[in-house]
Amino acid sequence: MKPELGVCYYPEHWPEAQWADDAAQMVETGLSWVRIGEFAWSRIEPNEGDLRWDWLDRAVETLGAAGLKVVMGTPTATPPRWVCEKHPDMFALDEQGHVRGFGSRRHYCFSHDGYRAEAVRITRLMGERYGADPRVAAWQIDNEYGCHDTVVSYSDAARTAFRNWLSEKYGQIDALNTAWGNIFWSMEYRHYGEVFLPNLTVTEPNPSHVLDFMRFSSDQVVAFNRAQADVLRELTDTPLIHNYMGRTVEFDHFAVGEDLDIASWDSYPLGFLEDRSDRGEDWKRRFARAGDPDFQAFHHDIYRAVGKGRWWIMEQQPGPVNWAPHNPDPAAGMPRLWAWEAFAHGAEAVLYFRWRQAPMAQEQLHAGLLRPDSVAAPALAEAAQVASEMAGMEIETGTAPIGLVFDYESAWAWKAQPQGAEFDYFRLVFDFYRGLRRLGLSVDIVPRDCTDLSPWKMVVVPGLLHWGGLSDALATYEGVVVAGPRTGSKTADMQIPLPMGPNMNGVEATVARVESLRGDMSVPLAEGGAYQFWREVLEGDTLELSEDGIPARVGSAQRQYLGGWPDDDAMHRILGQAAEKAGLEVLDLPEGLRIRDAGQWRFAINYADHDWKLGKHITGAPTGRIAPHDVSWWLR
Amino acid sequence: MKPELGVCYYPEHWPEAQWADDAAQMVETGLSWVRIGEFAWSRIEPNEGDLRWDWLDRAVETLGAAGLKVVMGTPTATPPRWVCEKHPDMFALDEQGHVRGFGSRRHYCFSHDGYRAEAVRITRLMGERYGADPRVAAWQIDNEYGCHDTVVSYSDAARTAFRNWLSEKYGQIDALNTAWGNIFWSMEYRHYGEVFLPNLTVTEPNPSHVLDFMRFSSDQVVAFNRAQADVLRELTDTPLIHNYMGRTVEFDHFAVGEDLDIASWDSYPLGFLEDRSDRGEDWKRRFARAGDPDFQAFHHDIYRAVGKGRWWIMEQQPGPVNWAPHNPDPAAGMPRLWAWEAFAHGAEAVLYFRWRQAPMAQEQLHAGLLRPDSVAAPALAEAAQVASEMAGMEIETGTAPIGLVFDYESAWAWKAQPQGAEFDYFRLVFDFYRGLRRLGLSVDIVPRDCTDLSPWKMVVVPGLLHWGGLSDALATYEGVVVAGPRTGSKTADMQIPLPMGPNMNGVEATVARVESLRGDMSVPLAEGGAYQFWREVLEGDTLELSEDGIPARVGSAQRQYLGGWPDDDAMHRILGQAAEKAGLEVLDLPEGLRIRDAGQWRFAINYADHDWKLGKHITGAPTGRIAPHDVSWWLR
Amino acid sequence: MKPELGVCYYPEHWPEAQWADDAAQMVETGLSWVRIGEFAWSRIEPNEGDLRWDWLDRAVETLGAAGLKVVMGTPTATPPRWVCEKHPDMFALDEQGHVRGFGSRRHYCFSHDGYRAEAVRITRLMGERYGADPRVAAWQIDNEYGCHDTVVSYSDAARTAFRNWLSEKYGQIDALNTAWGNIFWSMEYRHYGEVFLPNLTVTEPNPSHVLDFMRFSSDQVVAFNRAQADVLRELTDTPLIHNYMGRTVEFDHFAVGEDLDIASWDSYPLGFLEDRSDRGEDWKRRFARAGDPDFQAFHHDIYRAVGKGRWWIMEQQPGPVNWAPHNPDPAAGMPRLWAWEAFAHGAEAVLYFRWRQAPMAQEQLHAGLLRPDSVAAPALAEAAQVASEMAGMEIETGTAPIGLVFDYESAWAWKAQPQGAEFDYFRLVFDFYRGLRRLGLSVDIVPRDCTDLSPWKMVVVPGLLHWGGLSDALATYEGVVVAGPRTGSKTADMQIPLPMGPNMNGVEATVARVESLRGDMSVPLAEGGAYQFWREVLEGDTLELSEDGIPARVGSAQRQYLGGWPDDDAMHRILGQAAEKAGLEVLDLPEGLRIRDAGQWRFAINYADHDWKLGKHITGAPTGRIAPHDVSWWLR
Repeated sequence: MKPELGVCYYPEHWPEAQWADDAAQMVETGLSWVRIGEFAWSRIEPNEGDLRWDWLDRAVETLGAAGLKVVMGTPTATPPRWVCEKHPDMFALDEQGHVRGFGSRRHYCFSHDGYRAEAVRITRLMGERYGADPRVAAWQIDNEYGCHDTVVSYSDAARTAFRNWLSEKYGQIDALNTAWGNIFWSMEYRHYGEVFLPNLTVTEPNPSHVLDFMRFSSDQVVAFNRAQADVLRELTDTPLIHNYMGRTVEFDHFAVGEDLDIASWDSYPLGFLEDRSDRGEDWKRRFARAGDPDFQAFHHDIYRAVGKGRWWIMEQQPGPVNWAPHNPDPAAGMPRLWAWEAFAHGAEAVLYFRWRQAPMAQEQLHAGLLRPDSVAAPALAEAAQVASEMAGMEIETGTAPIGLVFDYESAWAWKAQPQGAEFDYFRLVFDFYRGLRRLGLSVDIVPRDCTDLSPWKMVVVPGLLHWGGLSDALATYEGVVVAGPRTGSKTADMQIPLPMGPNMNGVEATVARVESLRGDMSVPLAEGGAYQFWREVLEGDTLELSEDGIPARVGSAQRQYLGGWPDDDAMHRILGQAAEKAGLEVLDLPEGLRIRDAGQWRFAINYADHDWKLGKHITGAPTGRIAPHDVSWWLR
Repeated sequence: MKPELGVCYYPEHWPEAQWADDAAQMVETGLSWVRIGEFAWSRIEPNEGDLRWDWLDRAVETLGAAGLKVVMGTPTATPPRWVCEKHPDMFALDEQGHVRGFGSRRHYCFSHDGYRAEAVRITRLMGERYGADPRVAAWQIDNEYGCHDTVVSYSDAARTAFRNWLSEKYGQIDALNTAWGNIFWSMEYRHYGEVFLPNLTVTEPNPSHVLDFMRFSSDQVVAFNRAQADVLRELTDTPLIHNYMGRTVEFDHFAVGEDLDIASWDSYPLGFLEDRSDRGEDWKRRFARAGDPDFQAFHHDIYRAVGKGRWWIMEQQPGPVNWAPHNPDPAAGMPRLWAWEAFAHGAEAVLYFRWRQAPMAQEQLHAGLLRPDSVAAPALAEAAQVASEMAGMEIETGTAPIGLVFDYESAWAWKAQPQGAEFDYFRLVFDFYRGLRRLGLSVDIVPRDCTDLSPWKMVVVPGLLHWGGLSDALATYEGVVVAGPRTGSKTADMQIPLPMGPNMNGVEATVARVESLRGDMSVPLAEGGAYQFWREVLEGDTLELSEDGIPARVGSAQRQYLGGWPDDDAMHRILGQAAEKAGLEVLDLPEGLRIRDAGQWRFAINYADHDWKLGKHITGAPTGRIAPHDVSWWLR
Repeated sequence: MKPELGVCYYPEHWPEAQWADDAAQMVETGLSWVRIGEFAWSRIEPNEGDLRWDWLDRAVETLGAAGLKVVMGTPTATPPRWVCEKHPDMFALDEQGHVRGFGSRRHYCFSHDGYRAEAVRITRLMGERYGADPRVAAWQIDNEYGCHDTVVSYSDAARTAFRNWLSEKYGQIDALNTAWGNIFWSMEYRHYGEVFLPNLTVTEPNPSHVLDFMRFSSDQVVAFNRAQADVLRELTDTPLIHNYMGRTVEFDHFAVGEDLDIASWDSYPLGFLEDRSDRGEDWKRRFARAGDPDFQAFHHDIYRAVGKGRWWIMEQQPGPVNWAPHNPDPAAGMPRLWAWEAFAHGAEAVLYFRWRQAPMAQEQLHAGLLRPDSVAAPALAEAAQVASEMAGMEIETGTAPIGLVFDYESAWAWKAQPQGAEFDYFRLVFDFYRGLRRLGLSVDIVPRDCTDLSPWKMVVVPGLLHWGGLSDALATYEGVVVAGPRTGSKTADMQIPLPMGPNMNGVEATVARVESLRGDMSVPLAEGGAYQFWREVLEGDTLELSEDGIPARVGSAQRQYLGGWPDDDAMHRILGQAAEKAGLEVLDLPEGLRIRDAGQWRFAINYADHDWKLGKHITGAPTGRIAPHDVSWWLR
């Protein structure tokens, strides 16, 4: 696969006279893709039925004539004001019941049938216009589902739809009462009309109620996306794509991905570090100009899985963004490094966001490849360098040695019932991912419903709500398995199963009880490192005790269960021993230095602000040093 | 009095076939009480008037047959969905006016007449069914009034009832205007229909308005409870009980207690430490597996007073709970220690919550005496040990040497007008309590309307809003008195009195002015220690100056007033000198070690995670050491 | 100008028999002004049209007879309950749409026409009664506009008025769409009826939308004030005044000031330090009993500008207040110092708030010159000392060497688009002010529309949204200019201009890009000190590089632009060098010591709690030391 570069462009923001020059400069920079259209509804259809294709036709013509391939976005993330006038109840409501109205973006409730019909209508019109246009080579549906916490809505439309969804799922209301355990606290319903959304309760609602509501909410996103995908399938043969947002777990990306051809995500490493990192203030300061060394890679691997192998970066940060608490400039080299890292993880294309910094409205302080005055911003030259370096290069992803299970339902379940303030599913899985990366291991993300684990030498399963179909896959798997904590501790209905967890194939063990711990109360382990935040009292074949004499790991070297959340040291040791058991070579990469194996290539990526001697840390690396914020690759 | 053990049980959660085995195992463990019924309304009456006594009859039969005494709970804390359909406006509203609806528990407004009638109706039905049943040996009314901040409601029902309450209290509206000082800021009313609840104001409402609203809200709890108590009085001769919740001061427990026979509280030492402690993070870490060494004792003494000598623990934490920010396992020995400490303070019974951990719904991670799979959890053996140890033991409480005044109105008043961020009445009184306990002194809690202080050698009165009837009691009291800060600084209407405070019988003094202080700005005292958070400039016979030359204590050794909030050192010194003046022997108990005298017994209780040499710290103690988390007792 | 003292008094709070004694004691203390009436509406007009002038007549008579000059306040900040019954929709709504109702003060929406008419009506009635009364020597309109965040309202009245305001401003809706850049995210409107207020959006609203809403909201305050001023102009020849509140920037004080004769502000140094300081906890502790050494002076200078030279302190803190998180006693001497500092900055009068501490309602713990029991509080003697010291003294303010531009629109703009968590306009300008004061320089505040800068030797312009008319003033200015950061970086519509900033007359430079920085990420400068929070990459004639090699200051010594927010060290160095270039003598005053030059006088003011040797720090100062919390003055 030959990676490509591109950019996001808003012809409606600029004088038409400038379009051709912009397109020429894009091509000259080495870009081949240009995404347009996804926020342009008010210019395509300024009043209901008043369609203005002319300018968009000319934009496609101009870009296509320059040799660019167009990604056309459906504009449904920003319905114009007139759509809202027509459907005054189309807005989502927040948990307190306040309207989330017009004036920014994503101002719609996924459950509102009227708006869904509008979205399908405009999608059909666009598909009819451009679906067969040879210059339009891919489609993006909507934009960043879930951004700004928009998956969940507490509207009347959502309540009605949720009742229908429950009725479909459970049939008789008694089945719901049983599944949720509603006898507890006399919460039993007589019919579906008595069920409300799990907000505005006196104390916390039933976690089974919450979990079903999250499942429903996710299904509404899937259905909304599918409605557009179905229309576009009729009208185009080009790939359908959605651009997911970082650390957004409120809907099932795998499920949305089923209806699409390519997954993409919007990679803003510095914004995410400032806004969505658990690693503390010192860490954030150290990587403030580079981003978390594992965050992007983790998402790359997730979206490679969501896209069944095909994935892009649809928006790549080029300079400071405008939306985090602090928005520093990236260190020189990072816009190049981020693109190369994506290619190393198998990205087919990386599109920078955006071509020219907009002088107006909410994102006027979000950098582009060009400044508002059309002078080149620093990232433009870096993009050109990437284009030049990758010319003719082929990258095949292959299969990684490690499979790491990532499951959206588990994220919802532990959010509904964290039991300890720090217990966040994304954080837990990301900690395991970081531990694997420190060992120098490349990772594939595996969905919960995977039926064949044989491609991987080792499978890691942290915090999985319940085993589901994976249990059967484990039965025939011969590799090494590391699971826990909390894995298998619930039924699908979010009750404690009998027998109690972990219910792990091949491991005779019981989680006798669990405790959540203050951050200053970690549990040292006998062989080094500690558990933090979470600890289970295990019964079973003990591999290791905690210092206070409680079994901390059970099972066998081949298939073990962890009764806690390992800190960095314990994570490194335990995963390292397991990987060696699986026959893998393990390293101990220093902070900021990471590697990624893709087919015949090994990539080394340096997020640190100082250089490292490659050969000292990586077996078989070329001699010499890797500069700060640099990337290096060689045949392995 | 021979103490007893028991447990909370939910027959409706388990297969009927299991009941008899459960009951037998309870008896075998040494339990004699079992509480049932308090969340079972939806099974007793699944539709209006559709009463299903059969299962509950059989549960009572099974438990009784095993030899257990049943505490029957009225189920009014969890009205089923159909009750809410019938009374759609029965919910409380929060301060912002949001509904606090169905989906968890305590979803009712105390002022809603329709719901109160429903509560009385179901109580009458239960009383008629079981009031004379010999196996039902006590009744619990409702469950944890005030839990989840449910005393106060800003509903229409509350507004109407508040206007009536005010009209009753004040008669002509001018009396209210005068009492509240409504001329300030032109807040005068022309009639009661112009009075609203003190929420949604632009800046803080009038504290006199708030205080009356808190008094009203408390009275609504009292009336709600009385309505059930009156019904049960007609139908049963067994004791009536309510189970209060820790650190809940939003209603007057003494007033509720007037209508009941026994006070009880729900003791969750680890949850309370994590969720409701003012002592800082280091403290919380040190006692994370034991609980605050004074918090339980303080509540024991409060509820002994509320119950006029008769009190229980209705729910005792047996293992990790599910509702604090972190929920660690108790240290081995604590479930036993907690029970013994309750007995040392005069508890007639301690019931563990709950028998078997529920696999479903909100509290599925709340431990029980049994695990969800019916295997014994660690607390079961500890309960059995307590049962065995206490066999045949008699404990008489007697009168403690110290009387400490605790007053709910004062808590509301200082919440309405803290003047300094840290000024919380519970925290203040609890600091005095802790100081007394460090001295090795046993304490009785005294209500504000006490007319005879002669039982106590010394009386301590921190932060009392106004003296009320206690002034007369002081006039004839011959013991030592320590009062302040803020004591006597207001009228009952929450205005500054003339003459200004403290208006303390036997102490000629004036509080010239007051200041609240940052936590890093304490005021050192001439003789050691310091005042923190709060300091008054006193005039009067000076006992001690602060280092900056301002009278800090006035009066006499026999009767003194403190112009500040003593820190630990000042508290120990001042209370110690006063106690010696009162003829008491004082100790200086180390952290975690506490004693309690009950009749002929002296109990030593060790909350620390290391042992102490008893005789070194406690005069007359047996030789030897007290183990970590252990309890020891001897005849004194 | 001969400064005067006064006090705020509430005759309606006290028995009429006490008035004459109070007045006599005021005069004896040396006070000449007394403010009354501003919260007394419910006593003037207890029911609609039922006017009770008698008591107020007698109060004016009594105070006047004692020789006091009366400031009469219009009572419109506290409409009585009956006004609210008549206009049930007169309340402001907060950002979430909750009513901000009756029960404290400032419970009205500035856009409500019905309430504005009521305010005009009561003002006319009062003006008719007292406008020509010789004892009423000045008027205060309303009270503390904007206190408790009351400028902005999200009511229906505000929405309607905003649409009209926009229509007036923009005419055709397309002009608004262009000015706001509404094409971004399809936010275009078809007509003004589609425009809503910028609250309850999904993510942040368009900053141009917010900025116009803030302009509108400010204009509503101006119009509300003008409506009263216009009425009073017809009825009285005495000066009209408003009392502004500290650190309140939500409306344009200059614009309100256009309709008044004298500006005044309410100076609560300790409350503001605790509640509104950015300087951190150590700083707050060090000055907890004195106040921030520059905060009062900054406001004095602002209000001297707002009052076009005429300004007062209408309310001066005399002892502890009641509304900050902590409310300590002022150090002895501070009530005197604060008054003297005001006179040094040109105040015509300082009125202490209040005469006697009120025993009731919200402010009962707010000190007065008398205690509630009429005993003198410490500040009374300090007021008398000030009166005695200033007898016969003349103070002329003159022009300061420095002009510092302060602009309310810029405060709104950066609040709408801070880009970095710490970027607050008041904080930025105040940091520059503090830097100038540390240099011993006296400062005049200059509004954005100043057309002649020649009075000042040096002009400082931090963070000005756009240059506006100041650009022309700069063209002919010969003094030294220091501008930046962010100055000139936007158009008036809040878009990025072309050419990009700073667009500073006489400086060829471009802000190539900007970044906001974490507090732990400052940018060291080549010559010492650092930029914090904010850094711009500059192009132009470089005066100084940052250590990482980026131009940090550009222009010339005579006219320079700063590409960052200087920390204390950099501020001292850069402003000091600029001031020397402007021919000014500069000092390096130690913490807490400040000077102020007024005409022939130089005042030294010591906020520190220890003394300083004057001559060591201040050229030409008298020998000897200045005591803690003391003030000293001499002819320069």
